[in-house]
Order: sequence, then C-alpha cells, then structure tokens
Amino acid sequence: MIQILKGDICYSTDRNTLITVPDGFLVWENGLCTGVFDRLPDQYSRLPVEDCTGHLVIPGLTDLHIHAPQYAFRGFKMDLELLEWLNSSAFPEEAKYADPDYARNAYSIFVNDMRKSATTRACLFATLHLPATELLMDLLEESGLETFVGKVNMDRNCPDYLCEESAEASAAATIEWLDHISGKYVHTKPILTPRFIPACTDELMTRLAGIQKAYGLPVQSHLSENPEEIAWVQELVPSSASYGDAYDQFGLFGGDVPTIMAHCVHCPEDEAALLKKRGVYIAHCPQSNANLTSGAAPVRAFLDQDQKMGLGSDIAGGTSLSIFRAMAEAIQVSKLRARFTGDGSRPLTMEEAFFLGTKGGGSFFGKAGSFEEGYECDILVLDESRIPHPQKLSLKERLERYIYLSGEDWILHKYVKGAKLF
Amino acid sequence: MIQILKGDICYSTDRNTLITVPDGFLVWENGLCTGVFDRLPDQYSRLPVEDCTGHLVIPGLTDLHIHAPQYAFRGFKMDLELLEWLNSSAFPEEAKYADPDYARNAYSIFVNDMRKSATTRACLFATLHLPATELLMDLLEESGLETFVGKVNMDRNCPDYLCEESAEASAAATIEWLDHISGKYVHTKPILTPRFIPACTDELMTRLAGIQKAYGLPVQSHLSENPEEIAWVQELVPSSASYGDAYDQFGLFGGDVPTIMAHCVHCPEDEAALLKKRGVYIAHCPQSNANLTSGAAPVRAFLDQDQKMGLGSDIAGGTSLSIFRAMAEAIQVSKLRARFTGDGSRPLTMEEAFFLGTKGGGSFFGKAGSFEEGYECDILVLDESRIPHPQKLSLKERLERYIYLSGEDWILHKYVKGAKLF
Repeated sequence: MIQILKGDICYSTDRNTLITVPDGFLVWENGLCTGVFDRLPDQYSRLPVEDCTGHLVIPGLTDLHIHAPQYAFRGFKMDLELLEWLNSSAFPEEAKYADPDYARNAYSIFVNDMRKSATTRACLFATLHLPATELLMDLLEESGLETFVGKVNMDRNCPDYLCEESAEASAAATIEWLDHISGKYVHTKPILTPRFIPACTDELMTRLAGIQKAYGLPVQSHLSENPEEIAWVQELVPSSASYGDAYDQFGLFGGDVPTIMAHCVHCPEDEAALLKKRGVYIAHCPQSNANLTSGAAPVRAFLDQDQKMGLGSDIAGGTSLSIFRAMAEAIQVSKLRARFTGDGSRPLTMEEAFFLGTKGGGSFFGKAGSFEEGYECDILVLDESRIPHPQKLSLKERLERYIYLSGEDWILHKYVKGAKLF
Repeated sequence: MIQILKGDICYSTDRNTLITVPDGFLVWENGLCTGVFDRLPDQYSRLPVEDCTGHLVIPGLTDLHIHAPQYAFRGFKMDLELLEWLNSSAFPEEAKYADPDYARNAYSIFVNDMRKSATTRACLFATLHLPATELLMDLLEESGLETFVGKVNMDRNCPDYLCEESAEASAAATIEWLDHISGKYVHTKPILTPRFIPACTDELMTRLAGIQKAYGLPVQSHLSENPEEIAWVQELVPSSASYGDAYDQFGLFGGDVPTIMAHCVHCPEDEAALLKKRGVYIAHCPQSNANLTSGAAPVRAFLDQDQKMGLGSDIAGGTSLSIFRAMAEAIQVSKLRARFTGDGSRPLTMEEAFFLGTKGGGSFFGKAGSFEEGYECDILVLDESRIPHPQKLSLKERLERYIYLSGEDWILHKYVKGAKLF
C-alpha cells in the first residue's frame, strides 16, 4: 500500500545535514519510506495525497530513556541530588505500583500523554512488579507506539518495600515475565533492565547475563550519572576498572547485545573508549542531569568519538516528556559546559540536536528516525498555530523555533511505521 | 471596594518562607491586599466571593528584563554567542521596527501573548524608534499590565541602519519621546534605557544622566553578560574599575535612582559590592545566559550578599515568556554551576526561585508580588487541568509541579492591582 503526504518536510541524513523540502511529497509503501520528492513522480500521480501543505513534517522522535512509573511524580521534590532523590522520592513512589489500581490510573495518564507527544519510539523502565509491568505493556501496545519495556531488577541497597528478596527470585520473576508476555505484542518488546550496579548483586548480574543470552534480549541501564554513585560502584565491584567495566565484567555492556546506558555524564577516557568499542548507545538526558545536579555530559567529545547516541527525557529526573525540549536543552547545557570548563569545545548545533532526537536515537530500533529510502516511516505533522510570526521564515528557522518553543502536545498528526495514530 | 477570592493560596513573605493556605480567602480593597485568611472573617461574610476552590492562587509574576521587539524572532539563529548574535540577528531584526506596520503586527502578537501569560509586571526594552515605542506603550496600556518601557539609546558600535546619528540626536529623541508621552498612560511608565556601554558614547551617557535627573526616571541596562563584552567595556572606558563602575562614573548605577542591570553573570567582587552598595536590581536571566553561552550567574552568592534580585525572560536571548520556566531554569543552572565550579555552593531552592519571580522582582514596582497586607494585589489563578495526577498533592508539591511543567498560557484568571484582566 502506497501512501503520500504533502507538507514542509525536514529530516536528517547525518548529524550535520538537515534536508528541507518546502511543499514536498513524502511517499511510503507498507510502512517503509520510498523517498521525499519536491515534485510528485508521475507513477504516483493518480494516488490520493494527504494534504498538510504549510505544516512542518518531520520524522518521529525517539526517547531512549524514560521511567514510566515516575511520570506520576515528575516536577516535585526536585531540590535533591540523585541518591537522596532515589531514597526519598523515586523508591517510595515506585513502590505504589504494587497496587494494580494505582498502576492502571497512573500508567493510563502516562500512556495517554505519550501517545499525544512527539515521541514515536521509546525505551522504558517499568518497576519490579510483574502485573503493573504487563499492564504498562498492554497500554503501550494499544497506543500504537514502538517501545522496549523493562521489568526492573533490583536486589540490594534498596528499601525493603522495593527490593527483590534474592538474585534467584529476581531472575525467576524476570523469566516468568518474559514467558508470560511471549508472543503477546507486536509493537512492545521486552528489554533486560538491571536498575544500576548499586542495586544489583554480582549474582543477579550473572543470572541476568544468562537470561540475556537465552532470550536474546537488548539491555538498558544507567552509567556514570553522579560522582558519589561512581565512587560507590568502585566500592561494590572493586575489581572493575570503571563503572562501565563493572557491567562489562558481567557481559552486560554491548558488544553483540544492543545496549543503552543512560547519562554518561562523568565517563573517564577508558570508559568512553569501552562504550565506543562495544557499540553501546548513550542516552543523553540533559534536563535530568541538571535537575539532579549531575552535570552536563561531554556530548561534543562523544560526537567526535562517533559514539552511538540519542536523547532521553529521563522522567522523572527530567520533568518534560518532550524530546524537542531535550534537543533545546542538549544545546543549552553543551553551551554551559563549554563556558564552565573553558575547554574550547564547540557547543551542539541545532542540526546535531535534531539528529540526536530523530535518527541518532531512532537507530536503536533499526532504520528509524529519517525519511531516507527503506526507513520505517514515523511521521509528525507539527502545529505551529500557537506561535504566530510576523514574517515568512525558512523551514530551518521554523523547525528551530518549534524545537525551542513548542508545548508537549502540539502535534497535528502522528504516524508510526506508516500507520496513522491521529 | 472590597473583593474576595477563594482558592488554594500560595505566596512568599521572604525568600525562605512560602505560605500555603488551602481553601483560603484572599481579601483586597481598592486594589490593595488586606490579607489571606483560612476562614473568612465575620465582617466580610455578606460580600460575594469569587470561588476558585481547588485552583492554585498566587501573586502575579514580574519579568525584570525583556526585549519586546525581539519576541518576533525568538527561537531561531540560536547557535551564536552574544556579540555575534547581536550583529547577525538582534540588530537587523530590530531595524524592522522603523516600519510602523511591521511594528504594529509584531507588537500586537507580543502584547497579546504577554497579556495571556503569568507576567503581571515587566520592564521592557523597545527599540530606538519613537513611533514604534509609543505604539508598544499604547498596546501595553490597553493590556492592563503594569510596565516600564524604554526607548533604547545607542550611538556607537552599531550598524548604520540601527544607530542614532549622534549623542545629541539620541538625547533629543529621548526628550521628544518623554514629552510626547507625558501624562498619557496610567499603567505604562518610561524608563531610561542606554543599550549597554559598548553602544553608548561617553557623551551620550553624560546627556542621559542629565535627562535622568531632569525627569526622575528609573534606569535599565545590561551588565557583565559575556567575557568578550566585559573586555570591550574596559577598552572603551579605560578609567573604569569594572563594567559596573563605567555606568557609575556617569551616575547611572543606582543609588537614589531605581536601576536594573540584566545578567551579572561575570561580576568581579568589587562590582558585586558596588551593586549592593548602590541598591541596583539584578535581573537574572538563566535561559538567555545558557542560549548565548554566557554562563550561569552566581545567584547563591548574590542571595548571600542580600542583593536586590528578580528574574527576566530576556526575550530573545531567552525564548520563553514564562517566568515559571525562568524559576525552574534558575534552579537548574544553579545546580550546573555548583557542579562545574565545585565551589560547594548550595543550589537555588524552589522557595527561593518562587520568591525571585514574585516578590523579589515585584519589589522594583514597590509593594508587589506578595499577598501581605498593603501589597498591590496582582493575582494568578492557575490551570492545572493539563497535568492530571493520580494522587492528592500538597499545595507546595502542586506549585513546584506547575513551575516545572506549565505551558506559557495556563492561566485561568489574572488580576493586576486588584482589577480582573480575564
């Protein structure tokens, strides 16, 4: 089935190249992009065209790191650093998902907002609770979004009310979850989710590595977010050369396994080299890293190293679901980082930030986040009606403006893999 | 005339004290607050009550620094530093206000958005153009907001198309403007606005000091935003001990004259001491300072020094009109500053940021920005309907959440000096 949409089309081919096609035609067939044309090729001339003339049309955005249960408490108790915040805010709040009624209420609000947002693909942390995690997956499957969802593993250094009783129990619950959802979803996939090294015993990590191999799962976790956390990891895994090496010792740091590590704010050189060597994705979460006083990741260095990288909202360390806002904030914190370190590094450009939020993160899902031939066709038609302007602007100016100014649900139409959500 | 409004009332008395009164009654008479009561005192029991039960009710916000003509180009060409941005973006865009039709179109969009926003009071830069500046003042007067507006003075280091031809001509235009608007407005007041030292000759500064005295005007300008700018000021006024001292040498740095200096990102100690000594207001503009790679002002130090301070959007160095967002960003950049400098300074708290956006900046207008007895009663009734929550929250949690999450026009009702705008 061939479909055609007309509008002011913008997409990235690489991090320095923003393609803009005013009054262009985006063509896709069975969910895959055929291409973008400034005039409609003759062979399509008899097909209907979805007319979005005058509206910006861009690829869907990818959120590489988000805690679904934390959406319910985003935006308050923010005057704390990571470890204090986990204990006084994140853990007690996540414990509430033991109650399926609370989970349904909270996750319904979350998935409804995700559906309306600019995000078409996301990698999510759930909680350790199986019924709530499956409920989240049910809701996400209905939403039409493409997601990876992880039941969280955590068996140490957590409060009793939110701690699995042993490595064995945590591993068994994970297998129970995986077997129970096997074959149930089309759009919603499981991802192995050890919370972070401080919350997972060596035995649990070893068992999870076994489950990863047996089920061929991708992996997501946290890396080098906060200096105290990093020092703690060094105590907990004294044989590790770095925080990343601690994951690597258990075989849970990329290589053949698609892996995302969130934050990477304070990576020493050898850890950055290991990220690169193992092809691990960095989920850059600028808002969260500011809110939790973590810092600002060295994104320019990561780009120079040609690391795999995308953006994350990190709800509720971050408060905003919008990956557009993450783009603006990635630029802003890169500027503050450059000013404070005085290292002369060039701040992120608008083209680079847009790339990270589209094709950069999208590539974790395969060919996603662009309109190049063969890409899975996720489309956003943007609503600029709330930001009137006294003059004619170029497409690039309009896109930059939208990145800085848009609200969370200023989306007119949204397609995932070529299918219209609204 | 006595008026009463019922709701969930929050306001600051000082920077560490947030008063919250659930289901409280705010009473005001002839525009001035009588007080906030948890039960309605008997003497008011027969008066009508505006029932906003369940809604957050807070004082209006003050924007201490905003460039009205720049609203039209907020959010694009952001990948530049201050001096480059002025030449390639701000100056050519401001030149368009020589055309009254353009000015009417652009300023109408701006004032309409300001009216809907959370801001009840603002100090604005216009351009050097007299008709456009008066048009802006006309529109603001109609809006019901309380504002100071400045015709900008600039007679050097500007492009020919946006430069007054001499100090004499600039001073004469200023007097013409002041005489023309004299007695015309109730809510809209003039403020003397030398753009910044680099754009004003010594002769112009001397003439402006004379005009200041003759007309008893307050003053606004920019201070120590960017290292290159600061070095340039030192070259231009070689006798000055600091950028602030350059203003002071011309008698335009506070003292008896109510004065606002925007930014103050890179103030040396003696300059901070002079700010304090002269009682100059600091307009802290966190978003702009990030966007233009200026840095993050030492707000904790300024609070410890008991400086007068409020928040500014600094459109279009900043992109967002929302002073709520400025509160969140003031907290965020204070955290990044603390992390990068490692100076151990405590980041801004939510209470402090709320104080800066209400009573802190409001005090430039006299008794404004609080609900204490005798304060001019600016009221916002907030719309939280777009951020549903699965649990009951405290007023403080709801307010913090609103600060982090609200869109630019989520205001149900707005009063200025006790009069309802909508």
